[in-house]
Amino acid sequence: MNNRQVVLAQRPVGMVDASTTSIVEGPVPICGANEALIKVGLVSIDPTIRTWMNDAPGYLPAIELGDVIRAGGSGVVVESNTDRYKVGDIVYGMTNWQEWAVATEQNRFTVVPTGLGLDLATVMNVLGTTGLTAYFGLLDIGQFKEGDVVVVSGAAGATGSVVGQIAKARGASKVVGIAGGPEKCAEVVENYGFDECLDYREDHLNKRIRAACPKGVDLYFDNVGGEILDAVLSNIAMHARIVLCGAISQYNSMERPKGIANTSMMIMRRGRMQGFIVFDFAPRYAEAQVELATMVLDGRIAHREHLVQGLEEAPNALNLLFTGGNHGKTLVVVDESVTLG
Amino acid sequence: MNNRQVVLAQRPVGMVDASTTSIVEGPVPICGANEALIKVGLVSIDPTIRTWMNDAPGYLPAIELGDVIRAGGSGVVVESNTDRYKVGDIVYGMTNWQEWAVATEQNRFTVVPTGLGLDLATVMNVLGTTGLTAYFGLLDIGQFKEGDVVVVSGAAGATGSVVGQIAKARGASKVVGIAGGPEKCAEVVENYGFDECLDYREDHLNKRIRAACPKGVDLYFDNVGGEILDAVLSNIAMHARIVLCGAISQYNSMERPKGIANTSMMIMRRGRMQGFIVFDFAPRYAEAQVELATMVLDGRIAHREHLVQGLEEAPNALNLLFTGGNHGKTLVVVDESVTLG
Repeated sequence: MNNRQVVLAQRPVGMVDASTTSIVEGPVPICGANEALIKVGLVSIDPTIRTWMNDAPGYLPAIELGDVIRAGGSGVVVESNTDRYKVGDIVYGMTNWQEWAVATEQNRFTVVPTGLGLDLATVMNVLGTTGLTAYFGLLDIGQFKEGDVVVVSGAAGATGSVVGQIAKARGASKVVGIAGGPEKCAEVVENYGFDECLDYREDHLNKRIRAACPKGVDLYFDNVGGEILDAVLSNIAMHARIVLCGAISQYNSMERPKGIANTSMMIMRRGRMQGFIVFDFAPRYAEAQVELATMVLDGRIAHREHLVQGLEEAPNALNLLFTGGNHGKTLVVVDESVTLG
Repeated sequence: MNNRQVVLAQRPVGMVDASTTSIVEGPVPICGANEALIKVGLVSIDPTIRTWMNDAPGYLPAIELGDVIRAGGSGVVVESNTDRYKVGDIVYGMTNWQEWAVATEQNRFTVVPTGLGLDLATVMNVLGTTGLTAYFGLLDIGQFKEGDVVVVSGAAGATGSVVGQIAKARGASKVVGIAGGPEKCAEVVENYGFDECLDYREDHLNKRIRAACPKGVDLYFDNVGGEILDAVLSNIAMHARIVLCGAISQYNSMERPKGIANTSMMIMRRGRMQGFIVFDFAPRYAEAQVELATMVLDGRIAHREHLVQGLEEAPNALNLLFTGGNHGKTLVVVDESVTLG
């Protein structure tokens, strides 16, 4: 038995291509004292992985050349030298893009609760960092209040779709999505229950935001950055909160981004803009997961997973996030025999 | 006796010029029931006045063509039909750019405390909106903490110089100013006691901020906007706070500003950026004024006023703020016989 890994072969310029990563095979890692060996089932495909491939300062160190690609994932414990995990537990954490992972004191995993009636992909989506990002970004960073007019970019995406649904469930007066193309916009309204969705590929986004939110935007959850952020900024209401979650429009950019020109609106409207990383909320994950699980089970959160088969497809799956070719939370199936329940 | 007023004749494009304003003379206003008549002594010259001349949405309505230029100022009460003010009181509030003003129920003035031993220009500077903006911006919006590394743009200016001095007095680990030209930078260090001052007119501001603040900027007080804001953003520390007070670099701009490209640093470093207008803190002015007055009297706040003689010079005085031709808080002397004590 070997451990196949996707490693960083060359730092990408723009989109990831065939030269960016390579597959290497090595021995299955040894499970040391206080450690557990995990057979990986699913790995997560997230925009932030693209930022870790750059040799640039970030919230985590850049991935070194030759190192396995850092990523979340889930799997089953097959050997355990710690009381933390039993053989057979389904766990998730930082598996990275590989077939076998080791849980250590430094790299801890969470045991997935069984008996919820949710499949593993759903858990990875809504109860994983994707849904947790939506939850803490909207409620803690955004200080969502009942009656808020909420705008969400990347609204058809895994995080954005959950943001809008939590906002609706908690009494937003209006939830407006921004997404790319008519198909995604329809999905945002029909599947995720947003009141409206604006296609950023069409002209005059600024004016269409104004028409959708004539009294201004109270809370903007930004997954995209750049021109869309600027267009929303010009339409903020008094005391608006802008949650900076991601800037997917810039992760592959080879030019200096165009920049945000409407910062003076932040002064006029006393706006607050705040960036965050979900890892900061780790001590409170359980609190959010209970609520998110309940909302999935009672149907208040609709969700969609985009499964790609085969570890070797992970780099191509990452590109889907930037071309808009994915639908919902993108996961790569490394071993389909790893399932919940 | 007449009332001379500076009125808006034409909306400026770029800098204010001779066609922007005109002087009109009319009768001295009538002091009605519950009102008081004020002989204006000083009027305030503030960057925000330039924004009110544009026909654009703002935190206050645009000045209408033909209307007197809106501005703060101070004067002496010469007639009073209200218990609020006694004849002889020195008051300040919104006098506008004119020789006579009327205090009404809607346009209330504050009686300047006598016996502090401060002259009226000092009161208008440090205890007026200038100093109050520094105080609430740094402490409330910026949530200044002892040990913070603080950067202030417009550091030689009336607000910026006070920001840095409060930060030093309250235990900042380092206070770095940004100003235009070697003369102003020297003033910021020598007169206002900043640890260092960077000249934004020289190259590589970004790198010089990094050299001055190798552990990152905890709190940035921004009076300028644009490229300087962007350069500081690329150097923020974890949990940095960015106080958006003004964007003087943009008020005369005839082009779309270049924009802020480094918003993703706000995510990586969990930064918070917040705009404010000092008027929101009006119920708490007295609290700040007591502390500011004490700091002036015991020498912890150095200050400088730039007095321009003659109401008709007010438009030229406004331009000084944008060319950097002023030194300290700019005030126009309308009637030099109005003094404190």
